[in-house]
Amino acid sequence: MIRATDEWVTFERHFQQIIQLSAKTVGQNRLVYSPSWVKAQAALIQFGQQAGLTAMVDHYGNVYLDFPGEDDRVIATGSHMDTVRNGGKFDGLYGVLGGLQAITMLKTRFGAPRHTLRLISFSEEEGSRFNTTFSGSKYYALHQSVGSLSDQNGISFEQARSQAVEQLQAINHVMVKRPALPISFTELHIEQGPRLINAHAAIGLVSGIVGQRRWSVTVHGTSNHAGTTPMNDRHDALQAAVTIIYQLNELAHHLSPNLTFTVGQLTVSPNTSNVIPGTVQFTIDARHADDHLLDRFEQLIGETLNRQTDPHIKYALKRYVQDLPATFDANLLARNQQLAQQLSLTSQVMVSGAGHDSYVMNQVTPTTMLFVPSEGGISHAPTELTYPADLKNGIQLLMASLHAQSY
Amino acid sequence: MIRATDEWVTFERHFQQIIQLSAKTVGQNRLVYSPSWVKAQAALIQFGQQAGLTAMVDHYGNVYLDFPGEDDRVIATGSHMDTVRNGGKFDGLYGVLGGLQAITMLKTRFGAPRHTLRLISFSEEEGSRFNTTFSGSKYYALHQSVGSLSDQNGISFEQARSQAVEQLQAINHVMVKRPALPISFTELHIEQGPRLINAHAAIGLVSGIVGQRRWSVTVHGTSNHAGTTPMNDRHDALQAAVTIIYQLNELAHHLSPNLTFTVGQLTVSPNTSNVIPGTVQFTIDARHADDHLLDRFEQLIGETLNRQTDPHIKYALKRYVQDLPATFDANLLARNQQLAQQLSLTSQVMVSGAGHDSYVMNQVTPTTMLFVPSEGGISHAPTELTYPADLKNGIQLLMASLHAQSY
Repeated sequence: MIRATDEWVTFERHFQQIIQLSAKTVGQNRLVYSPSWVKAQAALIQFGQQAGLTAMVDHYGNVYLDFPGEDDRVIATGSHMDTVRNGGKFDGLYGVLGGLQAITMLKTRFGAPRHTLRLISFSEEEGSRFNTTFSGSKYYALHQSVGSLSDQNGISFEQARSQAVEQLQAINHVMVKRPALPISFTELHIEQGPRLINAHAAIGLVSGIVGQRRWSVTVHGTSNHAGTTPMNDRHDALQAAVTIIYQLNELAHHLSPNLTFTVGQLTVSPNTSNVIPGTVQFTIDARHADDHLLDRFEQLIGETLNRQTDPHIKYALKRYVQDLPATFDANLLARNQQLAQQLSLTSQVMVSGAGHDSYVMNQVTPTTMLFVPSEGGISHAPTELTYPADLKNGIQLLMASLHAQSY
Repeated sequence: MIRATDEWVTFERHFQQIIQLSAKTVGQNRLVYSPSWVKAQAALIQFGQQAGLTAMVDHYGNVYLDFPGEDDRVIATGSHMDTVRNGGKFDGLYGVLGGLQAITMLKTRFGAPRHTLRLISFSEEEGSRFNTTFSGSKYYALHQSVGSLSDQNGISFEQARSQAVEQLQAINHVMVKRPALPISFTELHIEQGPRLINAHAAIGLVSGIVGQRRWSVTVHGTSNHAGTTPMNDRHDALQAAVTIIYQLNELAHHLSPNLTFTVGQLTVSPNTSNVIPGTVQFTIDARHADDHLLDRFEQLIGETLNRQTDPHIKYALKRYVQDLPATFDANLLARNQQLAQQLSLTSQVMVSGAGHDSYVMNQVTPTTMLFVPSEGGISHAPTELTYPADLKNGIQLLMASLHAQSY
């Protein structure tokens, strides 16, 4: 029997081993199918096999670690192994290693469960290498394939995938398999926002994921000389863009304080200090739990563009992301709330502002998520931080939840 | 005696010969000391020598073509040979070949003048290759040298200069010399703006050049996740920049309709659609004939930055260009006005919104400029256009002005 302290030492060691794979870069870099990603998934298979779990790898490089139960029904947990460029230590990896830790501790304490326990490490969620997101969970849950995409070095998804996955499938005692779907999925994740910290809560019980839309707006004005063109004879694309963004920010605020509105990308052409901008392209990201409110905001964007008065400036609006809001399973949520109380963990129910593999899994099986606090609300950055005590709280609640479902 | 039509055919041929040097690029590309720039200055020397003028080249590659008079006093005209990247056909080159044409026609019609007539083709005015402007006229008029600068390929100014200038100085019968300053300087140039076209005027009589300042503004906010960060917990650098630009545009408009205000360059970091911008850097270009008004606008910029209320967003303001307004010689202007009337050319007095070699020459000698209309007000672009009739009008007025001063 492993002593409790030893178990956490193992968890720490697993974490360090995978984090060290990015030791030579700024932040964590495990872009899907990259050498460090292969090493990380291979290390995870090794951790699972050492703990006595059965390892499977499918054709997309999703890793499954099963602790077989009395029947074939599966209670699954997990998250994704990939990171954004220069990412943090906890996004994705916490749910993978935390899930492994919970299953290992259940195995040690309670032995074989009624239903099979499964840890899933999805290949890719972030969309940082190829212009596609959630390709791992979409392959598993929805049997969706990625089309012909290439990364910024011109390497195709297919080439990268086959080379990387071959290496994982060649590991001793690894089954090549996409196993059947589970009867529930629980994802442990860092919040990536400041709400738990601000509320002094230990656990976020996630009731769903906001709907999300993204648009690109292109403003075509006239590029000209900054000194010789009178102010009343200009068609300045940047001033037009600034006016629109300023107005949309006000409109978003009045529509709902819970509507997030972000202009994250803006490029100016020709982008020279003494030339009036001729073209500006910018993105709008808006999210809310109510899809009708996003409809209304999209309408307001169109009205705002139409309201501009200079006939020499042309606007093009294109929606390129439209993800509907997701509502997670109410029963799992209610049970997690009870279990948190029993463990004396302060919790709050919240809607996730970010997409997760759970968004995809929720389409095929009852799904729930557990959040732990992110210091400073910072994520997708090397300074991403969750303290060990908070990491343990999340794993303990996950363990209780898996126990309640499987034993 | 050359017939009038032959003279204009020669002018057209000169023009075509130099424009053809950029035949394989988009627009005109004669960056200082580049191969096409060397060919252009060499061709100009050949044109001058064929017309019986004395050619000189100084150490910066400024070309001087003299038609010696009875005394050593010099009446000069000219402009610059370099272009911006992908520039137009007329900016700079018109003043060079138009000046040569005017002197050649005076020589043919009237023979040797009282004062020496000089055409100057300045090496560089645009600042497109090295981070310095007016280096040709500053070397000639102010004896100023360029420090250690390199172009974007890492080639130093000194290396580029010495290799290019050697080739010009090796041409037969070329004197290596920086000659004495003239007693007046007249620059013929396209307007690069729409005012003459809008006013249906043939000639712009330039009374001076606006004062010009440029600032860079850096906005430091906090980069964070676009979905998980509540709106009231954001320090969005782009929204802050948008608010400032929006407010400054209003303030500039109220301060004076003649104040030009341009935000030409704006960069967002990290510039990703689903990440709240952490840093935004932008430039402000402001120009006006009254330097006190620019003082006042600079004060308003500072006040606007100080008025912003989020203590987590920091602003840095840095002025990196401050050129005082220039007032050109009143006597030359008045005479040009009379001469335009005598030639039945409609003219209007105007302040130039762009810098010119005349800005530098005006510091050492009585200076004036003549503008001709720019179709559509377009400049620094391949579509830059002035019709032949307007080109001839400018050259004829220049010829009359040089005649009145030299004979």
